[in-house]
Amino acid sequence: MEYKSIIKEVYNGVKDIEDKGKLASYIPELARINPNKFGIHISSIDNNQYGIGNYLDRFSIQSISKVLALTLAYKIMKQKIWERVGVEPSGTAFNSLVQLEADKGIPRNPFINAGAMVVADILVTHLKNPKKDFLAFVRSLTNNRNINYSEKIAASEKSVGYRNVALCNFIKSFGNIINKPAEVLDFYFDLCSIEMNCKELSDTFLFLASDGKSKSGIQLLTNSQNKRLNALMQTCGFYDESGEFAFKVGLPGKSGVGGGIIAIHPDRYAIAVWSPRLNEKGNSYKGMRVLEKFTTKTESSIF
Amino acid sequence: MEYKSIIKEVYNGVKDIEDKGKLASYIPELARINPNKFGIHISSIDNNQYGIGNYLDRFSIQSISKVLALTLAYKIMKQKIWERVGVEPSGTAFNSLVQLEADKGIPRNPFINAGAMVVADILVTHLKNPKKDFLAFVRSLTNNRNINYSEKIAASEKSVGYRNVALCNFIKSFGNIINKPAEVLDFYFDLCSIEMNCKELSDTFLFLASDGKSKSGIQLLTNSQNKRLNALMQTCGFYDESGEFAFKVGLPGKSGVGGGIIAIHPDRYAIAVWSPRLNEKGNSYKGMRVLEKFTTKTESSIF
Amino acid sequence: MEYKSIIKEVYNGVKDIEDKGKLASYIPELARINPNKFGIHISSIDNNQYGIGNYLDRFSIQSISKVLALTLAYKIMKQKIWERVGVEPSGTAFNSLVQLEADKGIPRNPFINAGAMVVADILVTHLKNPKKDFLAFVRSLTNNRNINYSEKIAASEKSVGYRNVALCNFIKSFGNIINKPAEVLDFYFDLCSIEMNCKELSDTFLFLASDGKSKSGIQLLTNSQNKRLNALMQTCGFYDESGEFAFKVGLPGKSGVGGGIIAIHPDRYAIAVWSPRLNEKGNSYKGMRVLEKFTTKTESSIF
Amino acid sequence: MEYKSIIKEVYNGVKDIEDKGKLASYIPELARINPNKFGIHISSIDNNQYGIGNYLDRFSIQSISKVLALTLAYKIMKQKIWERVGVEPSGTAFNSLVQLEADKGIPRNPFINAGAMVVADILVTHLKNPKKDFLAFVRSLTNNRNINYSEKIAASEKSVGYRNVALCNFIKSFGNIINKPAEVLDFYFDLCSIEMNCKELSDTFLFLASDGKSKSGIQLLTNSQNKRLNALMQTCGFYDESGEFAFKVGLPGKSGVGGGIIAIHPDRYAIAVWSPRLNEKGNSYKGMRVLEKFTTKTESSIF
Repeated sequence: MEYKSIIKEVYNGVKDIEDKGKLASYIPELARINPNKFGIHISSIDNNQYGIGNYLDRFSIQSISKVLALTLAYKIMKQKIWERVGVEPSGTAFNSLVQLEADKGIPRNPFINAGAMVVADILVTHLKNPKKDFLAFVRSLTNNRNINYSEKIAASEKSVGYRNVALCNFIKSFGNIINKPAEVLDFYFDLCSIEMNCKELSDTFLFLASDGKSKSGIQLLTNSQNKRLNALMQTCGFYDESGEFAFKVGLPGKSGVGGGIIAIHPDRYAIAVWSPRLNEKGNSYKGMRVLEKFTTKTESSIF
Repeated sequence: MEYKSIIKEVYNGVKDIEDKGKLASYIPELARINPNKFGIHISSIDNNQYGIGNYLDRFSIQSISKVLALTLAYKIMKQKIWERVGVEPSGTAFNSLVQLEADKGIPRNPFINAGAMVVADILVTHLKNPKKDFLAFVRSLTNNRNINYSEKIAASEKSVGYRNVALCNFIKSFGNIINKPAEVLDFYFDLCSIEMNCKELSDTFLFLASDGKSKSGIQLLTNSQNKRLNALMQTCGFYDESGEFAFKVGLPGKSGVGGGIIAIHPDRYAIAVWSPRLNEKGNSYKGMRVLEKFTTKTESSIF
Repeated sequence: MEYKSIIKEVYNGVKDIEDKGKLASYIPELARINPNKFGIHISSIDNNQYGIGNYLDRFSIQSISKVLALTLAYKIMKQKIWERVGVEPSGTAFNSLVQLEADKGIPRNPFINAGAMVVADILVTHLKNPKKDFLAFVRSLTNNRNINYSEKIAASEKSVGYRNVALCNFIKSFGNIINKPAEVLDFYFDLCSIEMNCKELSDTFLFLASDGKSKSGIQLLTNSQNKRLNALMQTCGFYDESGEFAFKVGLPGKSGVGGGIIAIHPDRYAIAVWSPRLNEKGNSYKGMRVLEKFTTKTESSIF
Repeated sequence: MEYKSIIKEVYNGVKDIEDKGKLASYIPELARINPNKFGIHISSIDNNQYGIGNYLDRFSIQSISKVLALTLAYKIMKQKIWERVGVEPSGTAFNSLVQLEADKGIPRNPFINAGAMVVADILVTHLKNPKKDFLAFVRSLTNNRNINYSEKIAASEKSVGYRNVALCNFIKSFGNIINKPAEVLDFYFDLCSIEMNCKELSDTFLFLASDGKSKSGIQLLTNSQNKRLNALMQTCGFYDESGEFAFKVGLPGKSGVGGGIIAIHPDRYAIAVWSPRLNEKGNSYKGMRVLEKFTTKTESSIF
């Protein structure tokens, strides 16, 4: 497989650099992770796979699961979903509240917390048993029954998630949350607590490089919907570092405060990196470096 | 050439739809354009070309020339340019002033007016005769001596450009404009007044689909710089409709209030559309439709 | 009593003007009030009293009770209270969220909802039985055991108060709410539901015209603290219409969405007006007119 | 005179405290003032006067002259002036740009720079020779021909006033500046450069304590207009420290970055303080202390 030697080289090049990032501190359980964990795994559409480092250790994928929630909600609602959430980058975290006010409760995009809550609300409405059914959906993408929520992480978030409670009730006050805020928040914290390792992550997200077809063979999205999801990840996947990621890495992707990042090259591969220390924008410090070096060396940016 | 029949089909499909857009009204001269003009032209890297409609009529490319100004400034300053202007989407027009304040005079990206003024300031510093030298640069990309500024358009903008005067002096107050505001503004209004037709536009921008090499054979940017410029256009090229453009069209591009849009498929083509009526976000109403249909039919989005 | 004939004249002058205001609609129970109720009552420090119209009908004093809550909290905490809440006008409702973010959870002043929640939190901390003890405090100011909460109004607010839930959790996320948000909110909604008639209202607030001494003889605040409370009402008592109220009426005061307004002339009197229809800023339409005419005719503005 | 001994006491009490303020640095000429200057002067309506310290040294009154400009414009336009400028506190400096945008170019009040520019624009429209006529007006209030502009200060401000140029052009873009921005700015910088000493300042502003009648006997404003001007100074006279000033001092007033403050007790006196070092909100550090102590000791706050 062509990428193997480059990944090895990138892994070794980044492994020992000074890690200027910091563990996510606002969720007590996340602050307890071993900060030196470091793994990479690539899954290509021609069925090649390669992993290095702690690529088999599971971690909390956090916001990365917002993409999976959106995928399911998009599949259910089709175009109608965009009446409740936008597709524009949000500028900054700072603005999200002002913008919610200006935009009458329609979040800028489905990857900021506000948007993911609207997506969670949609799933709460449409799934019989949201928590159970969503997990079944995620597992089905790779026929992997070992993927689970972390009750501990979810409980830890619930215990301190005042800002998310604020956000959800604020959207509710505009009428863009249909269900009870407490119910939506409960599901939201659960879905953020899903754990995967780098291999599972790249396998799960391979559908975005495969015209919407999961590794297990399920056609999740149409080709056009799939392209749109990739476009969304490109413009909005990294909060207020989305431009920087497009600029330096040049691939659609999504990060989580657990230190994971997934990036997609349409028609080629999905690559997952994990390193828990985060830069000041909340994205994995080493993870960003790995992907920048990887696309530079492979010249595989989409631009 | 494979795209010819599709362009013809798209042109005819969009030609007679109700145009819900409106002519740019804030610049008196632009409000005088014949609103029914409509042209498309594609230039591919394998030297194929095809145009339809008013593709040989010149129009004011307006903000599209910000990409050319940035290209020249990037070539001159290299990485150092990003100390003076960011690479993140700005969210909304509304925010640009707040963000300038919060970011101490560093504009979010080089395609919002504030950012383009910083780029203009850089050129005023580095070019001997900014107005003359910039035009020579633009002409050199395609060896086309017929490209010119429109004195009339520039004068029209200067007569009413109070908001731009405000913006430039605001940035100056933070020290991120080096030259005199009046001088920078003068050059800024000039560069926005460049006129091209669709053919000239797609020829001029072909370098972005050719690893940074202009049609005339000049290596403007390195491959990596070129990819970064495309990424910037993708995330920031359409003001607060950038996400929508990535989502629906899926190509890097840039629009101007003259009704022109350029879009790039890296390694394949540059396509220019012109239709003067603008949607409420300030982008050509028909132009957006044309490009959406074109990438859908050709399945040539980059995502 | 000198004011009697002027009040009669003002009452009759305003009684039949077209009321351009609207009933508060966001709290279901408030929307059911008879919108034609209209009463005025003045209590002077030289023990004169005069009422006209529906001045003996009780209504929900809503935000007016924020002044009473602040009085008690100020009495308990003294200067230390200003470490947790500011004394500056907030500009607009719109800004309050942005400002909370910029000011790290310290509300601009104790009369915007955010500030009143911090005050409520202080009382929850210091009172043994907040709900019971606060009512006892309010009753003690005039030795009036007939003053009560309205369970119906409080329940009505609790059923739709998503924005207040958002606000309280947002402040909690900055650490400036000590107790559980649900507990603070519960008390907050209760205290806003207190009911008084115009006579009770002007009697209760007479302490602000009496160097801090209540009608029942209790010294609530020092002279200096009392002046400061009046100053706060002057600059912040009417949300983003505070400037207008100072400008047109020229007295410290506080309004509530139940249609009540209390205004104070230090060393002279307290005057209460009630008329349920609100102008677009949320203040009683007729109430504002009454007070403007009253201070003009009596030339008793403090300026 | 009753206030004499208290002023002496306050002067001596504040004279030697550590001055934590800093000279205004953004106007080169202002940064050259001797920072230890310190003077107080009171003028009462019963014709008593008392000064101490450097009360006869002239200084740049800066924003204090906005009150005089407003007085003249109010006299000319009467109620119509409030169609072009509001009467609400602005919250913070930070917000003024956002609010100008939200309020379509209508500044929040006449004492923030934006508002004073609109007032200057009104005077440019109505005065034959704005610069000369305004000075004549100011001199006429006390029959004092020694009051002058400082050409040096005005020139110094003009050389660095980029933010004010930005502001004026921004308002112009909304149509709320009628004349040419350059002309309005020129007059604006001139009027801010007026110099007075503490005695002249308190004499000049005595009309606000005298129902609108100047020391020289001219009836400038009606009693009602005069009260409104005082109310405006109370709610908006100290930028985002207006609430604090009302809270601690309890008098209408206005400060300038030259270190001067004027405060008014309606029907009693005008008091001027000068000490050039400013606190972080831009108001004289010692001046604020003096006035707080003075109104506390004299118990002469209006609240």
